[in-house]
Amino acid sequence: MENRTEIGTLGEFGLIKRLATPFAQHQGWTKLGIGDDAALLEAANQLTVTSTELLIEGVHFDLSYTPLQHLGYKIVTLAVSDIAAMNAIPTQIMIGIGLSNRFSVEAVDELYAGIKTACEDYQIDLVGGDTTASPQGLIVSVTANGVVDSTQVVTRSNAKPNDVICVSGDFGGALMGLQSLEREKQVFLANPDMQPELDNKSYVVLRQLKPSARFDIIHELRELGVVPTSMIDSSDGLAAEILHLCEASGTGARIFEKNIPIDDETYLAATEFNLSPLTAALNGGEDYELVFTVSQSDFEKVEKIADVTAIGYMTDLKNEKVMVMKSDQIVNLTAPGFN
Amino acid sequence: MENRTEIGTLGEFGLIKRLATPFAQHQGWTKLGIGDDAALLEAANQLTVTSTELLIEGVHFDLSYTPLQHLGYKIVTLAVSDIAAMNAIPTQIMIGIGLSNRFSVEAVDELYAGIKTACEDYQIDLVGGDTTASPQGLIVSVTANGVVDSTQVVTRSNAKPNDVICVSGDFGGALMGLQSLEREKQVFLANPDMQPELDNKSYVVLRQLKPSARFDIIHELRELGVVPTSMIDSSDGLAAEILHLCEASGTGARIFEKNIPIDDETYLAATEFNLSPLTAALNGGEDYELVFTVSQSDFEKVEKIADVTAIGYMTDLKNEKVMVMKSDQIVNLTAPGFN
Repeated sequence: MENRTEIGTLGEFGLIKRLATPFAQHQGWTKLGIGDDAALLEAANQLTVTSTELLIEGVHFDLSYTPLQHLGYKIVTLAVSDIAAMNAIPTQIMIGIGLSNRFSVEAVDELYAGIKTACEDYQIDLVGGDTTASPQGLIVSVTANGVVDSTQVVTRSNAKPNDVICVSGDFGGALMGLQSLEREKQVFLANPDMQPELDNKSYVVLRQLKPSARFDIIHELRELGVVPTSMIDSSDGLAAEILHLCEASGTGARIFEKNIPIDDETYLAATEFNLSPLTAALNGGEDYELVFTVSQSDFEKVEKIADVTAIGYMTDLKNEKVMVMKSDQIVNLTAPGFN
Repeated sequence: MENRTEIGTLGEFGLIKRLATPFAQHQGWTKLGIGDDAALLEAANQLTVTSTELLIEGVHFDLSYTPLQHLGYKIVTLAVSDIAAMNAIPTQIMIGIGLSNRFSVEAVDELYAGIKTACEDYQIDLVGGDTTASPQGLIVSVTANGVVDSTQVVTRSNAKPNDVICVSGDFGGALMGLQSLEREKQVFLANPDMQPELDNKSYVVLRQLKPSARFDIIHELRELGVVPTSMIDSSDGLAAEILHLCEASGTGARIFEKNIPIDDETYLAATEFNLSPLTAALNGGEDYELVFTVSQSDFEKVEKIADVTAIGYMTDLKNEKVMVMKSDQIVNLTAPGFN
């Protein structure tokens, strides 16, 4: 009988590791391949940063409540967010789309209107792509490139004990936006005459439908002359991203519940949905904020950035990734799917 | 009532043009974006070439007769074939995969074994990717990068009247391989005890399942000091590719039936399937051979390359793209989906 191991037994990261390990490196100018947010390709003076994503209807997005224009914008955001996570400036994208016959030209126009707005906001060029038929639903592949000086590159792996763990923005909003939209969808399906009740959900819905990549933070860090010691963008939730940084850097981490930034609307929405706001922030995902570490000496400068919060520090206890609760209780940081 | 235009009314090229036109260019170093086989990004001394494709099970491949290892190899081939078409040397790829729960780890291992073999053959690095769930079947996105000196870049648009139209290899084989495999599939579905009859089909089946990108030709051209005036790889059939070169260069073309290279096995298979071998060659697609033009003065050198054939020449009659038949009759060159 043939061996058959279910992919679920490996998990996504296990699968990636398994797939990537056998590959030899042939090109001297490939400075960094699989294993970080993006790949690094050496140009003469600057490095080219490149990253790719594959998004599938029904897995990554639900068109029953996602306007195609917002989806177009979001596709670009999540691709360039990986470029930001390398401390690089985005430059180009390529987009492949697979379309079932459910989609009209006008629908594709809307999708690309959102992509165009994002290209203008991020000052990047669409330089290629592919369009094809899809037997079912919408499929989107997106590749983003960026550039960065070799002295400015930030990977996940250079955090040191005592470095301050910082985050941009706030967390959990995108999840609560998703929950709100899902609830309205169910209400609508049960009774199509019902009007959506999203009045007090405008912030969280926008966090879900139209997230931004934080190049404002990247530019502020440059103006301050600060290069983070490690950085990642939060697509899978704050806890998972901290665990990624710790694993890559070989450090432990200690963060503080009281410091985790959660917007009031996120807090109220979570309460309404009988969800812990803290869990939403730690495990929610899709916030596309930056999670990074800076040395103690750089922290004085970083503190001045309005939308950055220090939430804890790295430690030399590499087996201890913990959160200090408001009650002073200490709990392990965990993330679904992370082992 | 909302406007609704079916995508089919535009065709693939019309759709791409419609989607690409509104985008402004922001980056000075984007030397060439949408509209050729790949995008050109300027590095200091060399240009980076990048291209992306999206492949969907049931649209681009049929796993009932395509071994996953061959599929992995073919994915890389068709991505780097676009790099060859720019006269560039491939350097890196990124691959995204969407997998339904039908696929086991072993199955994905097989796919990546083929990708790995191709990476070794082409001496390129896998530098990134994405893996995700798919509700149905296998989805693959692939992005390839390459480098080329700015003096060596070959686009589609620089062919001149009287330039010689050359091709590598032979045409129509991949289509006849596909037809043979499809027939065996139907036989197997009707009676699973039947053994496949592919004995005299080994060449055409290999052309379909494991095509090669023609970097041997790229290297030979360099050794001879020849830079083609235009070039494209043949994914949609020889006729479509010539029409592409003519349209981009603003030329006409005259090719000769008697010069079109068709392998004996392709010829026999086409006859067996009641298909014209010439139609298979002109409209078959998936051969991944190079179609290029060189100046008359360079042709003396190119003639020496064993696997290159001159099939005609460019003309200044831009509305005339014709083929001279063995009977001396002159017919228009046409390609399905090309307008």
